[in-house]
Order: sequence, then C-alpha cells, then structure tokens
Amino acid sequence: MQEYVDKIKDMKLEEKAGLCSGLDFWHLKGIERLDIPSIMVTDGPHGLRKQAEGADHLGIYDSVPATCFPSAVGLASTWDKELIYQVGAALGEEAQAEEVAVLLGPGANIKRSPLCGRNFEYFSEDPYLSSEMAANHINGVQSQGVGTSLKHFAANNQEHRRMSTDAIIDERTLREIYLASFEQAVKKGQPWTVMCAYNKVNGEYAAENHKLLTEVLRDEWGFEGFVVSDWGAVNERVDGLESGLELEMPSSNGVNDKKIIEAVQNGELKEETVDIAVERILNIVDKAISNKKENAHYDKEAHHLFARKVAAEGIVLLKNEQNVLPLTKDANIAVIGSFADKPRIQGGGSSHINPTKVDRVIDEVNMYSSATTFEEGYDVETDKVDDYKVIKAQKAAKNAEFAVVFAGLPDRYESEGYDRDHLQIPENQRLLIEAVAEVQPNTVVVLSNGAPIEMPWLENVKGVVESYLGGQAFGGAVADVLFGKVNPSGRLAETFPEKLSDNPSFLNFPGEGDKVEYKEGIFVGYRYYDTKELKPLFPFGYGLSYTTFDYSELKVNKKEIADNDNVEVSVKVKNTGTIAGKEVVQLYVNDVESTVNRPLKELKGFEKIYLEPGEEKTVTFLLDKRAFAYYNVEISDWHVETGDFNIMVGTSSQEILLEETIKVASTVELPFTIHRNTLVGDLLNHPKLAPVAKELLLKNNPFGGMDESEGENDAPEMMEAMMQNMPLRAMVNFSMGAFTNEMLEQVIKDLNNV
Amino acid sequence: MQEYVDKIKDMKLEEKAGLCSGLDFWHLKGIERLDIPSIMVTDGPHGLRKQAEGADHLGIYDSVPATCFPSAVGLASTWDKELIYQVGAALGEEAQAEEVAVLLGPGANIKRSPLCGRNFEYFSEDPYLSSEMAANHINGVQSQGVGTSLKHFAANNQEHRRMSTDAIIDERTLREIYLASFEQAVKKGQPWTVMCAYNKVNGEYAAENHKLLTEVLRDEWGFEGFVVSDWGAVNERVDGLESGLELEMPSSNGVNDKKIIEAVQNGELKEETVDIAVERILNIVDKAISNKKENAHYDKEAHHLFARKVAAEGIVLLKNEQNVLPLTKDANIAVIGSFADKPRIQGGGSSHINPTKVDRVIDEVNMYSSATTFEEGYDVETDKVDDYKVIKAQKAAKNAEFAVVFAGLPDRYESEGYDRDHLQIPENQRLLIEAVAEVQPNTVVVLSNGAPIEMPWLENVKGVVESYLGGQAFGGAVADVLFGKVNPSGRLAETFPEKLSDNPSFLNFPGEGDKVEYKEGIFVGYRYYDTKELKPLFPFGYGLSYTTFDYSELKVNKKEIADNDNVEVSVKVKNTGTIAGKEVVQLYVNDVESTVNRPLKELKGFEKIYLEPGEEKTVTFLLDKRAFAYYNVEISDWHVETGDFNIMVGTSSQEILLEETIKVASTVELPFTIHRNTLVGDLLNHPKLAPVAKELLLKNNPFGGMDESEGENDAPEMMEAMMQNMPLRAMVNFSMGAFTNEMLEQVIKDLNNV
Repeated sequence: MQEYVDKIKDMKLEEKAGLCSGLDFWHLKGIERLDIPSIMVTDGPHGLRKQAEGADHLGIYDSVPATCFPSAVGLASTWDKELIYQVGAALGEEAQAEEVAVLLGPGANIKRSPLCGRNFEYFSEDPYLSSEMAANHINGVQSQGVGTSLKHFAANNQEHRRMSTDAIIDERTLREIYLASFEQAVKKGQPWTVMCAYNKVNGEYAAENHKLLTEVLRDEWGFEGFVVSDWGAVNERVDGLESGLELEMPSSNGVNDKKIIEAVQNGELKEETVDIAVERILNIVDKAISNKKENAHYDKEAHHLFARKVAAEGIVLLKNEQNVLPLTKDANIAVIGSFADKPRIQGGGSSHINPTKVDRVIDEVNMYSSATTFEEGYDVETDKVDDYKVIKAQKAAKNAEFAVVFAGLPDRYESEGYDRDHLQIPENQRLLIEAVAEVQPNTVVVLSNGAPIEMPWLENVKGVVESYLGGQAFGGAVADVLFGKVNPSGRLAETFPEKLSDNPSFLNFPGEGDKVEYKEGIFVGYRYYDTKELKPLFPFGYGLSYTTFDYSELKVNKKEIADNDNVEVSVKVKNTGTIAGKEVVQLYVNDVESTVNRPLKELKGFEKIYLEPGEEKTVTFLLDKRAFAYYNVEISDWHVETGDFNIMVGTSSQEILLEETIKVASTVELPFTIHRNTLVGDLLNHPKLAPVAKELLLKNNPFGGMDESEGENDAPEMMEAMMQNMPLRAMVNFSMGAFTNEMLEQVIKDLNNV
Repeated sequence: MQEYVDKIKDMKLEEKAGLCSGLDFWHLKGIERLDIPSIMVTDGPHGLRKQAEGADHLGIYDSVPATCFPSAVGLASTWDKELIYQVGAALGEEAQAEEVAVLLGPGANIKRSPLCGRNFEYFSEDPYLSSEMAANHINGVQSQGVGTSLKHFAANNQEHRRMSTDAIIDERTLREIYLASFEQAVKKGQPWTVMCAYNKVNGEYAAENHKLLTEVLRDEWGFEGFVVSDWGAVNERVDGLESGLELEMPSSNGVNDKKIIEAVQNGELKEETVDIAVERILNIVDKAISNKKENAHYDKEAHHLFARKVAAEGIVLLKNEQNVLPLTKDANIAVIGSFADKPRIQGGGSSHINPTKVDRVIDEVNMYSSATTFEEGYDVETDKVDDYKVIKAQKAAKNAEFAVVFAGLPDRYESEGYDRDHLQIPENQRLLIEAVAEVQPNTVVVLSNGAPIEMPWLENVKGVVESYLGGQAFGGAVADVLFGKVNPSGRLAETFPEKLSDNPSFLNFPGEGDKVEYKEGIFVGYRYYDTKELKPLFPFGYGLSYTTFDYSELKVNKKEIADNDNVEVSVKVKNTGTIAGKEVVQLYVNDVESTVNRPLKELKGFEKIYLEPGEEKTVTFLLDKRAFAYYNVEISDWHVETGDFNIMVGTSSQEILLEETIKVASTVELPFTIHRNTLVGDLLNHPKLAPVAKELLLKNNPFGGMDESEGENDAPEMMEAMMQNMPLRAMVNFSMGAFTNEMLEQVIKDLNNV
C-alpha cells in the first residue's frame, strides 16, 4: 500500500517538515487536509505502557492495564527463540487491541556493566544471543501487523549522563559487539522503526550520526523503516535529518519544524532530504493503517497464563545442593521476604507496565503446600534491619522443613535514569538470608532482580533460584519451578561476577565527565572472564536442571572449508535422568591462532530442546563465514584468517563437553604495501613475498658490515629477533655502506611489483 | 668551559652536519682541523661494555672486562637511593679508567608487562621509584665527570617490533606513568644525554617526536644536554633534527649528513637548527674533555666487593616459613641447580658485560658450610628433563638437612630483542624443584631472573629468595643472605602476579601489527592489582627480613593545606627483633574522592633505614602538590581536587600499617563553559554557579509542562536522576512551550557571565 506516501507530492513544505516530529508525547502528526491519520506509539518491550489520552506528562505508573511479561533479561534467559516470537505475537495482539501502531522495543544494547540501571530491558552481554532474541521478538510483534522500534541505537550502555556522554569505541569493538547486537535483528527482523540513542558515539550524537543511521543501518544492513529519536534525543534537528533521523519524538512544539523549513529555504538542506524522510515515515503509517485490525481484543486470562509459562522458562536454577529442590508437595515451608507478598515483577522507567493482575507468591505456594507460613523479614522501602522481623523470620524458618527466602533488588536500586554503584542487595535482606540460613539448613533463596548481584551468603544456602524480573505471573511461575511442576531450563544470558571489580568495564565505567572509553574493547562479558582466566560466580550460559543430559557424537560434515563455504555441525543430546526437561545446547567457536587479539571463545549457535526421560535428539547447527570471522578494520569487512578453528559444544561458556577442529581457508588476500619501515621479518614470513624477498636481500647483501658468525655465537635468539624486527631502512645503517639508500628503494619497488 | 662550542662559527656546513652523527659504532666525530676530539660512549647501565678498538660489529660478549653490578631490577630492589648513587660513582670511575665519556644508561622505562625482554634493565612498574633510582644513578656516574644517557625516551616497553610499533597512550597516562618515570630523573639528575627510543609514540617516531624531545624534555623539564638516537632509531634525519634529535648513532656512513646539507641548501632546514644541535653536542664534549681524569684507574677487587654488597642489598626474601632461613652454619646442605655452578648474573643484549671475575655460588656456600654437596639437577641449555640428574638431586636433598635449589630463567628466555610469551621457568627446573621438595621439607629456592615468574611450586617449599640478576658477586651475596651474614632488606619494585593473565596489559600486549594500545591506562602494576582487588602472588614493595619492625606515631604537621603548600609526615619505626636490619618505609597517597579515575594508592615517598635491635628512628617525608595531583589534560597541568587525602604508611603496597587523613584545597579554578548541552545537574552542583542557576531556572520555569507532583510520587529516584542528567536544550522539549529557545540562549549567556 502506498496510499499516504503517494500524497507527498501534494504537501507543502510546512506539512512535510511537520511530519518529521510528533504531535505530542505518543502520537505522530497526521494531516487532516490530506486524510493522513495520526498513529500512536507506546513504550514497553515486555508489555504495553499506553498512557490515558491527553497524558502528556512523564508520569510512569498510570497507564492502561496490559499483560506484564518478564523483562528482557528474563526473556533472554529462556534461550528459546520460538517462545520469544510468541511473546512478541502476544504483545502485538495487545497493541492491536489498544490501537497502538508501534511498540517501542525491543532493546538490543549490550550489558557492558552489570551496573547499568536499564540492563533488565536488554537481553545479554553477547551480541549473537541478543540479536537472535531481538529478531524473534520483532518478528513476533510484527506478525500481528504492529511495528517495533529496535532501541537504543547505539552504545547506550549506561544511564549515567546518558544524554551527554560520548561513548568512545574502537571500530572493531563497535562492529563485533555493540553493532552486532543490532545487526541480525535488523537483517532478520526488519523492524518498522529503529530508535536512536541519547548519547554520542565516537564524538557524534547518535541522533545525528550519519555513519550509524545511514551508512551502517541503511546502506550496509538494508534497513527499510524509519529512525525515531529517543524521547528528547534530538540535538540539532537539521543535522539529524541529514544524518538519517526521520522522526523526532516527542513534539518539539514547532521549534524544530521551523528550523527545517528555514534550512530548506536558505539552501542549507535539500528539500529532497525532507521528502525522503517523510516517505519513510508514511511508508510505516501505510503499513500500520493497512494492518490495523478493527475491534481487536485479547484474552487477558490466556495472556496471564502464557506470561506464567514464559516466566517459568526464564527462571535459572543457580544452585541445588543435595537436590534441595524441587520441594516436596505439602512440605512444611517457611516463605520469607516481603517480595513473596509484593513481588518485584518489572523494572522502573519507561518500560513500567500497569499489569492486568499480579500473582502473589504466597498464594501460589499455598496451592502446592498448605503447611506454609509467611514472614515479611524486611521492609522493602529501606535498607535498615528490623530485628523484630528477622527474629520472627528465623523462628518460622526453624519450625519448618524448608525456608524459601524471597530477596533481590528493590525498585529504588535499579531503574531507567540511573546506574547502580555496587552489586549488593540491601543490608536487611543480606542479613535476613544469613540469619535464616543459620537456623535452617534447607534454605533456598529466590532472587528478583534485573541484573547480577554479589552473593556473599552463597555457601550458606542450599538452593538459589534466579527469577529476574518475572512479570505479573512470576508468583505462579516460581511456585511451578520450586515444586517441580516445571523443570527449570533457564540459562544465564550474562556473567555473574564474584565481585564488581572483576567486571571488564570496571576501570572505565561510567567514564569521566562526558566521555566513556570502552577500553576493554571486544572483551565484554564471558569473552573477558574466559581470556583473563577470572573465575565468575556463575558463568554465561549456566543453569541447572532437575534432570541430567549426556552429550555425544559431535560431528562436522567437513574438516576443511573455504571462508565462503558453510559447515554443518551435529551433536547428540540425551536426557539421562528420570524426568522430562529442556536443555540449551550451546556452540562456541575458538580461533586457534590469530594475528589479532581474539576471545577464547564466542557463541555462534544455540538450540533449546525438550527431552523425555531417556530420549535422545540430534541438534544441528550451520556455521558460515561470520562464525569464524573478526572485523578487519583495514579492509572494513569481516575476515577469516586461514587456520584451525575449534568448534566447542557445551552447557555453558565454562563447561565445554565436546570439541572438533576444522580448517578454514581464507579466500581474501589482505593488502600489503612495502615501504622503508617494513620489517624484514614481515617480508620473510609473508607467504607470497618471502621467496622473492630472500633472493633480493641476499643479492644486495645488506648485512655485509656485520660479522655474522660472531653474532650468532653470542646470542642466536637475540640476533634472530633483532633481524626479524628490523625495518628495511635500518639495513642502510647496519650494512656500513654495503647497502645504499638507492638499493633500498629499488628493493622496495621490486617487492611492491610482485 | 666553552672551548669547542666557540669553534662553531669557524665550521663549514659539512662539518656541522657531520657532527650530528657518529664516527662509527661507539665514537662521536671529531674535527681534526679544529682540534675537536672524538669522544667515546659505551653501553651498559650496570657496567661498561667497551668494545675493543675497531670492533664495529654487533658482537656482544667480547668487550673489555668491567665490574658487572646487579642489573637495574636488582638495583631498584635495594630501594636505597644513596647506594644507587654509589653504584653510579663506581661506574663513573670505571668509565674514567677506560676513557669512556658517556655511559649509555640508566633505563627508566616502565615495566608495563613482565614479558618485556628488557625489563631487567629497567627499575620498576612505578614511575616515582623508577625516577628516583634513575636520578641517583645519573648523579653518581656524573659525579665522576662521566656522562649518562637516560634511555629509552619514551614508551619503549616491549622488544616485540620495537623499531616499528606505535605506542598509543592517552595523555594522562603518558604524563603520570611513562613520562613521570623520566621526569624527576631529568630534573634532579640533569643527564648529559637522553637516548630516544626506537618506537613511535602516538603516531610519531620517538626519534622525530617534537613533543617529546623538545616541548616536554627541553621546554618543560629544562633538559640541557643532547638527545642521541638509540642505535639505528633514526627514520627521517632532517625531521629528527627539527624535532630535537641532535646526535644520530651509529654512523650513517654519510647518507644522513648529505640529507642535512641538502635540506639546508634548499631551504627546508634552517642552518640555525644545525648550529643549535652542534652546540648542544659540543657542550657535552667540552664537559667530557674538561672532566677527563688522566691515568684514572679503579680497584677491581674493591669494586667486586662493593658489587657483592649491592647484590646482597637487592636480594628479596619472598618466603621464609618456620624461619627456615638463615641457614645454620656448617649445616648439611644440598646445593642443587646448574645456576649454582654457572650463575646467571646479567641479561642478554647491549648491556651484557664481560665481568672482571665471577663468584661461583658453591664456593661461596662452602665458605659457610663445609658439609655441602652439589648436584646440577638440570641442563641450562634445554628445557628437557634429565631424569638421571633429577634422581641424583633428589638423593642429595634427601641426605641433607636443607636443600637449596638455584633456578630461574636462562639467557635464551629473556634478552634485549624479544619478549617472553609466558611466565614459566623451564620445565626441567620446575620439575626439579617439585622433586626436591617432595623428599626434603626444608627446601629453599633461590631465583635468578630478570622479571617475574609464576611459582606453581610455591606451597611446596619453605623458602624463596629472589636474587634477580645479581651481577658478578651474586654468589658471595646470596651466601651472605642465606647464612644471615646479611639480613635481607630488598623489596620488590614490581608486582609478581599469580598468573600472566592477571597482568593489566595482558589483553593489549604486545599489540597487533605495528600498534600497541595502552588501554589499561594509568592502571599499571600495583595501581591495577589494588583497584581491581586482584590478589598478586607478591605485591609491589614486598620483602621479608630476619628481624621485625614496629610502626607508630604517624604524624602530619598540618591537617589542612593548600595545593601549593607542603606537608611534613613523620613516623616512628622500631626494630623489635634481636638482630640488626634494614627496613624500607613506604608512603602512599590515596585520593578519597575524585571526579577522575584514580588508583587506590600511589607511592609518593620511601626511605631505607638501618636499625640495631631495639633501636627506633623517626622517618620524615615532605609531600608537595605533586603527591596529591593527577595530570589534568584540560588544563595541561598537574591538578589537585579539593578534598580529603589518605596518607598511608606501610611495608608494602598491600600492607598499610598506619593512616592519616588531610584536606588539600585547590587554588586553581577549572574552566567551565555553559552551552546548550550542559547538564542541569552540572549547574546545580557547581559551587559557584549553583545559586544563580537555580534562580534563573526557577524564574524561567522550564518544567512548566511537567506534572511534577505525579512524577515524584511515581519514582522519585528516577525523576531526580533524569533531571540531573538532562541537557539544558532538552528543557525546551519537555517544557511544552513554556521555556523557549530564546529563553535558553539568555540563560546560557547569563550563566557564562557569572
């Protein structure tokens, strides 16, 4: 459909400029004269935050009820692409029912530091996992004729000074980590819109970053939708328009419309640029209107039950000593912690949903065991210890067979808008856990939090369940897992460090003044812990099950491939326990030897499979060039170095069970120019130039002045190394006149002609 | 004296150009016509490497005998400024005796990575300690009328691709770490010459780096001598001359003389530039000739004995479980290890001395205990285990009361010219230590190595003695320490990591291609281990003694100072043991709160003191601005932020015994310009602007459009954070028209006028 796009030719400049910014906080402008409607967008990657009509303020909590699914961190922990697609579809249904054209999500920023206040809205520290999740989320929402807004593009990895900070990131890191997380989401998902970030990236605001918004997003990745500013991200509107920012949100109250008009009138801006922007916006309006379902509605109860399923799938069992879990039905259980009464189901900020209903954990536990007591244990509004509450909790724990403590991070600890500065849970919660564990050996901790925490009490308790921010049905979901109705299958999409200072960004987060330098480079998350041999508390990809799995017969269909070829990898996985369960099979690739710095391993494939007891399935992966490549900044392209690569299959980044090695041969010749400062060693080690170089150097006898035999006798390793590291021009010095400048120039010329 | 300088006016351009490069490998040119003599320079920070006349080759081991003192790493471990001065003086004496005008040392490069093959020639990972050592070394040599060449200026922190690699270092790191290590050495030592490095620094060869050679070295630090190229470091001679490189070494065989002449003749180079270079060179020739002592000689035996004293002072006792050391005289001792027979006393490369004599360890141990057996244990030329040697060593160890294993790094492992790629000692030595420790509980390991190694066997042995590369009298020195004739007082001038991957430069060493990025920034050595809370094997400043010391009464003479004021710190130290000993009192400073990233502590003072049993001394330190400052790149100057500073006194970087806090007030106002992207929070937190800003913002009511009460009820922490992080320009958006662009511009104007 091209209904609205076709009307551009009838528009006045004022109308076109007007379309480049919002009508208000949540609506695009329409043009009554031309019957162009105003469409609505709303916040919310894990649910709709549709504000009541006319609510142009920043009030967060007062929106139309919607199903609150787990936050992105919880979704990512499912490692289940199909499930994420279904969540997206459910969100799309709700958007249709609420007449919302575009849902402002998902977020694909990388979890550079666990401190980032908005981590709960993002998927992972790994770009491959993150991008896969985002692509499926987008495809799910858009399958319902509702658009998405992939955000925040790019490098919005902290809240601290988010509107002014400049993220300094080298090109390779940008490509391999921060952009890669968006790349497949754009290519596989083709989101209707992409939302630019607030911050600067390498000196330019994301909102006016031509490289990001046009060269990479559109020209390289083929993005077809429009780019919308994060709310208030526009700095200089005209620069933004020229760089590829089509829509400013919210309204600029006419200020920036005027600037656009003036710029066209005085020749600073081509009217064609405005036309293209409007065309891109109206293309999406066309899509929205033609896909709009009249009288759409959704089944609130069915969505609640689906939210329960999703939440359970994302729960990660971190510790289960002596199989303390699952709990026996009707066991005498002390449920402890304010979060069991008033659960923390989502994070603070623009993603905050007004849920259709909220499960109370105690009620859900009571469905499994009537012999349940509850104690609050702490006041969630403060860090202060309430001795009376602790003593009551201890007493309840002592009298029970099991204690389940609900703890984690309160709202005030993590939110959009600010970052944490430590990884601790509130003092009153930490002390409560220790106090309960002191009197009850069968203590299990259930965590509600949007990002990693330190666990100084880990050794004191038998079980730890990471439920992240589980959405409105968290209560039912966690009860299902605790009592074994659901066999936990969540896996960490991020590393839990032992302590904050272990994190790779620690020395450079959140930066100084308005500059944050990503000096850890590509070594983000497990890429760092692996390479630095730093033991995490829990590694990326980790999670326990109530059953056991056995891996065997890792096979590759080719032992040698060219870099433009594919290789198929298969592995058999068997459920060797007595109950059904799901396993996340993870495939990592390691470049055995490389001239550039590479992580020890990188995730390049994963599949979640369901297995009945005794059942065995074969999982296959197809690896292409990208699975072996690094981003080569010299040729501005992905590049594979000829050599051996290990293909590693395992259950987490730290537990590799099977390995195979294949050879990949490059089909690309890297440029190599010889100059007076080219090292002798680089010539003698170059596959093509070595023979010619040897001949030329021998013929010209540049070491005529050196007493070789003596040198070699002295320290052969040193003489060899000095020779390798010597630039051609130094031969003129050390030859004592035998090798002249003129001879050097001729040698260089000859070599460059090879 | 100005004898030779005065002759410049009589020189032809050819003669002047000629003086800008060497005659051969070791001599400057003279001019016979004008009676300007040719002076000689020779390698060797820890001894003279004077090659026989006419030896223009690179042969290393064939020089005139000279006293081989401990390498720089051993000298630094003494932490004894006066002693280093005396070593310098002894070197100066030998240079006079050999008619050498300038000794090519000391080296003040920072030990960025323990892998650097030339670390043994450098002092420390800490710039303060390194610069103090270098200054005393220089002052000692030059007290004898012999010049020094402070090298390799700058950032020559690896051997890998040393002639082509580009060290990318941010300005603050360069100033605080890599240049700081040279700065005090230049200011306090005023070396006759400075030797530029081979590598590039931030894109420019050190040999033609105007910023380093002229702006920093001469203009800022007041260097008065001449700069000489490292041998073969010259790239483009004319660029070098213009940047401040006066002397090229070795001879360019006339090639570069010609280039200089041509450049002057075609107007590319001012003749005045050549004149200045020649004047600087001849100034030093004047100095050398006027300070030359006729018929100088030195007492070889006295120097040998002095070398023994110095070596003993630098030995660091790393472990002494159950006081296994000192050994009882006449105890039955198994001396094991090839190094006890043929000791490794120095490193490979240009610093390699031909010693006047070499102590054999076994002979020296025999002086203390006749009941000594010796077994070779391993072949130093290979890593391969010789089972027969190990079995014989085991047998000897079993039959003795003590086993002392001499181990470490062979010549082929560390040298000028190449770097190590791991921290292991040879397999045959590691196995030997384990085998001996298995049968002999009283096992002591004595290490000879130029840089840190991993010690997987540390728990198996009772004693570890780090003797580094101890020079020709190492044998006697180590015997003195082992038997308690000398109470060990060496302290580590570098961190020993548990494993290589713990090192801060690990992810960025030795770089990729011809680029090495110092991404760890200022976090070098203990600055990193401290801040990252990473436990080292042995920390910076660490070393044991045979006696014990007690610290008390840490006092500061002022609790509050201005940044241009000084503070005096004193502390009492008492020998609480039963034998005399030396203690190294270390003072570190910590900035309690800072807007820039700072290390947890930095060394700002140290004193080595001698104490009889029961004796107590008061040690005083004077701290000035620099002790509290960081390098502020915005104002290109050292800057102190007003606030509290902890003054920490202890026995190592990890063992702080006493602390005092003082307030330092800045007398400098940092520039602060308000623009449309200035954050609201920055204004409201600015000491001077806050009141005005509040008034102006209130008056203009920029938040008119926001429903404040609702926002605050929702999420007060978030609203507060969002406000703080909001640029002024965003108020125009969020005010919904109440705060116009014109009002914003007026506010900015008003604030900039405050």
